[in-house]
Amino acid sequence: MKAKLISVAFAVASVVRAQDPLPSWNDTAPKKAIFDFVEQVTKEGSSDFVKPEERIATFDNDGTLWAEQPIYFQVLFMRDRVKALLPQHPEWKHREPFASLLGDDMRAVAKMKEGIPKLMAATHSGIITDEFSELVMKWVTTAKHPTTGRPFIEMVYQPMIELLAYLRANGFKTFIVSGGGIDFMRSWVEKAYGIPPEQVVGSSGKLRFQLRDGKPVLLKLPEMDFVDNYAGKAVGIQKFIGRRPIFAFGNSDGDQQMLEWTAAGSGARFMALVHHDDAEREWAYDRKSRIGTLDKAWDEAIAKGWIVLSMKDDWKTIFPPTGPKQ
Amino acid sequence: MKAKLISVAFAVASVVRAQDPLPSWNDTAPKKAIFDFVEQVTKEGSSDFVKPEERIATFDNDGTLWAEQPIYFQVLFMRDRVKALLPQHPEWKHREPFASLLGDDMRAVAKMKEGIPKLMAATHSGIITDEFSELVMKWVTTAKHPTTGRPFIEMVYQPMIELLAYLRANGFKTFIVSGGGIDFMRSWVEKAYGIPPEQVVGSSGKLRFQLRDGKPVLLKLPEMDFVDNYAGKAVGIQKFIGRRPIFAFGNSDGDQQMLEWTAAGSGARFMALVHHDDAEREWAYDRKSRIGTLDKAWDEAIAKGWIVLSMKDDWKTIFPPTGPKQ
Repeated sequence: MKAKLISVAFAVASVVRAQDPLPSWNDTAPKKAIFDFVEQVTKEGSSDFVKPEERIATFDNDGTLWAEQPIYFQVLFMRDRVKALLPQHPEWKHREPFASLLGDDMRAVAKMKEGIPKLMAATHSGIITDEFSELVMKWVTTAKHPTTGRPFIEMVYQPMIELLAYLRANGFKTFIVSGGGIDFMRSWVEKAYGIPPEQVVGSSGKLRFQLRDGKPVLLKLPEMDFVDNYAGKAVGIQKFIGRRPIFAFGNSDGDQQMLEWTAAGSGARFMALVHHDDAEREWAYDRKSRIGTLDKAWDEAIAKGWIVLSMKDDWKTIFPPTGPKQ
Repeated sequence: MKAKLISVAFAVASVVRAQDPLPSWNDTAPKKAIFDFVEQVTKEGSSDFVKPEERIATFDNDGTLWAEQPIYFQVLFMRDRVKALLPQHPEWKHREPFASLLGDDMRAVAKMKEGIPKLMAATHSGIITDEFSELVMKWVTTAKHPTTGRPFIEMVYQPMIELLAYLRANGFKTFIVSGGGIDFMRSWVEKAYGIPPEQVVGSSGKLRFQLRDGKPVLLKLPEMDFVDNYAGKAVGIQKFIGRRPIFAFGNSDGDQQMLEWTAAGSGARFMALVHHDDAEREWAYDRKSRIGTLDKAWDEAIAKGWIVLSMKDDWKTIFPPTGPKQ
């Protein structure tokens, strides 16, 4: 068993080295920077060598590993949950942020102060963790994106799937550090990105342990427990991982502190942001967008020489041709 | 690099199979139960086969992986911190729980309501995470246990170190799920048990992200964030790991819900408790002890047929002969 696993891992590693491990990336600066960094930290004897157990790579999710327009997909999941729960909550028809959400006015929802947290509390609670996980998995594989018509699990970025696999083949441990809901992500990210649930850091609500007919369950409560965004991302990294990343990839101001925290460690570091500048193949938005605002983090990236990836110029393809690869 | 790592892993796995992987265990029922369980879940084609990524094993720390008498070692660390901080806090000399702690009256400290949380708030805050980690590492390797005279990092259980390595050699991912402080444990458990920081679940205080001279730091605050004990252990497993363990080892009532949560999953399961019944080589305590109380969880273990390990009968040796092995 063990021997078989090892030989498979070895075969994969050999293939990765023989072929281009990042075929969906153009041969532009970011791809070269990735190869250079990985070589630098994995070359034994080099002054920048990093032990495998310290090769921690953190990735934001929304806008970094999968798309986030016209609104974070988790909000679209909330909309479908609100619709499903409406018979028990007829008052939602006339109460915000539910009314705007039901009217598919995502602009209004995104603008509303506390709009998303209120929806999260209403739609992500009163359900036990196992059932919630099944619900999300079903939704993400069957519900369709409003403009592309793809199942949401196919709205992932092919170049990033390749990058995750390439890093893992080089001894990195890949983590998600996202403002999105931790239980929401954990149900499908292993299938989509090969990232196991224990390597997902996200926002979360409180849980209550209960015995139901003698069987323990964990009930999701409407109170927020942790918001994994902005400074919360540096806190989340310490809280859940307890080791500073050497590699961090984000796309918005919410990722700024994750990149700062990564950059502040000693030794070689890799910090990068995805710039959504491809209106044709994806979406184009940055400083003025309410979703995935890239403004202050962009300025800091320019000032500090962090990589700013252009989707248009640096990625050969955006989405996987069919279902996402693992 | 990769090839070398793989061949080392393979060599270790072969050695483990050729020799007895648990030499510090007597050939009694618990050892046999461990071998049977591991064979059952790793044998491909078996109806109880568990995929490697789902082989999650969780271990309590105090009283399960290392000793906990005369009081949790983290409290002894607090005592030394209180002594070090006393010049800045002369009022502690006449205020509880500090006064009892300074007088080494551990019985009084253990009895005091909120005694340990108050000490934790006072001694584990006002310091940044990196400095705290260094402080703990220095303490655990140099401070001596009051009765054995060993450095605390050598108060670990040799049979458990072997068990952790054996599980990992069989594709398990080993986690600590402890009521102890998460930052306290993370600094030394990789050295002691081979468990990396990201596989440690524990109690924690809140953190604040700050820029000091432009450099980001995480300041430890005196407010508790999460208590990973009793029902909190099931919650902590969901929060930090997000996947239900198939194997759980504890020693006290604080571990009861972790074992219940583990037992409630489908498929083969392994639940066990360490019973401290060896007054000669370690300590003997259970139902009436304030430290590591084993009462309700013991009754449930008997009722449900979980393993109750006798330190006296089932372990050939208790502590490692010299420094702990990795």
